Amino acid sequence: MSAESITRVILNNYVPDGTPNPSDFRIETVPAPTADMLRDSELLVRPLYLSCDPYMRNRINGRDGYYIDGLKAAAPIAGLGLGVVEASTSSGFAPGDFVTGGFFDWAQKAIVPAAGFSKVSETDRVSLVDYVGVLGMPSFAAYVGLVTLGKPKKGETLLVSSAAGAVGQMVVQLAKIRGLRVVGVAGSDKKVEFVKSLGADAAFNYKTCGNFEQAIRQAAPEGVDIYFDNVGGEFLDAALMNMRPYGRVAACGQASQYNVTANETYRMDNFLQVINRKLNVTGYVITDHYPTPSFAEFLAEVDEVIGLENGPTALIDVFVGNNFGKRIIRV
Amino acid sequence: MSAESITRVILNNYVPDGTPNPSDFRIETVPAPTADMLRDSELLVRPLYLSCDPYMRNRINGRDGYYIDGLKAAAPIAGLGLGVVEASTSSGFAPGDFVTGGFFDWAQKAIVPAAGFSKVSETDRVSLVDYVGVLGMPSFAAYVGLVTLGKPKKGETLLVSSAAGAVGQMVVQLAKIRGLRVVGVAGSDKKVEFVKSLGADAAFNYKTCGNFEQAIRQAAPEGVDIYFDNVGGEFLDAALMNMRPYGRVAACGQASQYNVTANETYRMDNFLQVINRKLNVTGYVITDHYPTPSFAEFLAEVDEVIGLENGPTALIDVFVGNNFGKRIIRV
Repeated sequence: MSAESITRVILNNYVPDGTPNPSDFRIETVPAPTADMLRDSELLVRPLYLSCDPYMRNRINGRDGYYIDGLKAAAPIAGLGLGVVEASTSSGFAPGDFVTGGFFDWAQKAIVPAAGFSKVSETDRVSLVDYVGVLGMPSFAAYVGLVTLGKPKKGETLLVSSAAGAVGQMVVQLAKIRGLRVVGVAGSDKKVEFVKSLGADAAFNYKTCGNFEQAIRQAAPEGVDIYFDNVGGEFLDAALMNMRPYGRVAACGQASQYNVTANETYRMDNFLQVINRKLNVTGYVITDHYPTPSFAEFLAEVDEVIGLENGPTALIDVFVGNNFGKRIIRV
Repeated sequence: MSAESITRVILNNYVPDGTPNPSDFRIETVPAPTADMLRDSELLVRPLYLSCDPYMRNRINGRDGYYIDGLKAAAPIAGLGLGVVEASTSSGFAPGDFVTGGFFDWAQKAIVPAAGFSKVSETDRVSLVDYVGVLGMPSFAAYVGLVTLGKPKKGETLLVSSAAGAVGQMVVQLAKIRGLRVVGVAGSDKKVEFVKSLGADAAFNYKTCGNFEQAIRQAAPEGVDIYFDNVGGEFLDAALMNMRPYGRVAACGQASQYNVTANETYRMDNFLQVINRKLNVTGYVITDHYPTPSFAEFLAEVDEVIGLENGPTALIDVFVGNNFGKRIIRV
């Protein structure tokens, strides 16, 4: 019997700026990795679904990143997804386990470090593809920022930017379940209506609201206990002036600052409020949280939400539908 | 027997700016409060020592403060100190208890809410005046920022600004006890030498070091795990560029920003690092921490340090000596 071959996707070269071209990648066929190649605490995995996410742009620019490590040129692309274990040298995993949370090579089979992965399973309510959809990284990022870092208490007020995005709309729903007053911010009137349809108590369009600080104050006159920040920059600065004492800022993203030059970086005016208002500001990367208890708590809650509401389909449509333009690769 | 009289200090009027004059205050003699005036959860206390601290300036400016509440005009000045309970309607306190952590009216006797106070005692090693000296608010602020918020691990690197100040020098010593590499920053060569004499592995003068970001990098080439911030502004901005992933910033003070006009406020350039480096930034006010387990842990540790080293006198000299210009009122 001839050796098994696999297909994989290689990053030919770094792409510092602009839109990558197909020629920046190549598809190659190589012998499949085998169980005897495993070193300690590794998994031989077969990815079933791979997730295409905006953060991946930063992994191929060849610059040192702090947020997550960059990819290597002339090596396979890697990303989040859902896979099945074929062989394991880690006591936590066995052949047949479905795993997510770590980085998969974009390959039909790959050897990966076990650290960072968590086991998941199919249930009556949850199918495997959900782990790159409604139960995928953006939803878990929403859970960690809101629940683990935000420590919400019933009756508190939550402000969330990019509220119509993949992360933001999950934040809105998880916050409403917890009895928070929710204020969502989005970039079009249509998105604002969508955010309200998810249950937000108030929502506004940041492109037409005028002064940010006043717009927030009008929507949340009692002040903000938790700001779930997806945008950074000027809006974050305005949010700081609306925080209540002991408020929490979950710094999930700074979309307004990613594509600006050094000269265009927004300079924060209101950092003194961190002390004045005794705030807690935490930046995080979601991949750190898959190996923590938060992931099981998240799955239990969102599984239940799916079941209790209108079954998987409705919510999955919301979360993997055209609203996001989220792309999933079935391997 | 005629009713007992007490002396107390009244804030005549708010002092928005500049140095207060004696005419902004008055001394008055009034009938002493008595135990029958206590409502629920209050203490009738006799202050023994009252602490004069820089933060008090902000309490008499008549502007809404977030950090701690302002004082009322035509009412007594209040501040931290050490007192003895004469009567109590709180189950946690009995007559004869020594208490600290809450605000005492500047009066020979006063009724105060029990919340915020903690019991303390005299020991072989600790005399009552120590609770406004080596065991006083600046030292406890150092403990909370370094230990409770900074979560130090042996071998990590700590950066502390105003390292020769009352808070900073305690930070340096508590950090060295924990096996951290300590970098201190101060405003004169003499202070830098003093910081080194406390055990700091490196120290520099921010007034002569040139570029802050480079100076920090030179002193801490491996990066900073904990930045204990007493100054805010440009130095904080530079520190953010030197933080290691998962670093913690204890935002204790922003001395560089307290006395500047709105136009002069330093605008932070590097806030994106909070996400890039997955930082945790926490502002705090020390009075919130007296009723927590941190206070007993702090007393146990610093008591032991006093005992194990050269006895109370040496360290107390360091902490209540002319280095601080700290003033204590014996009532």
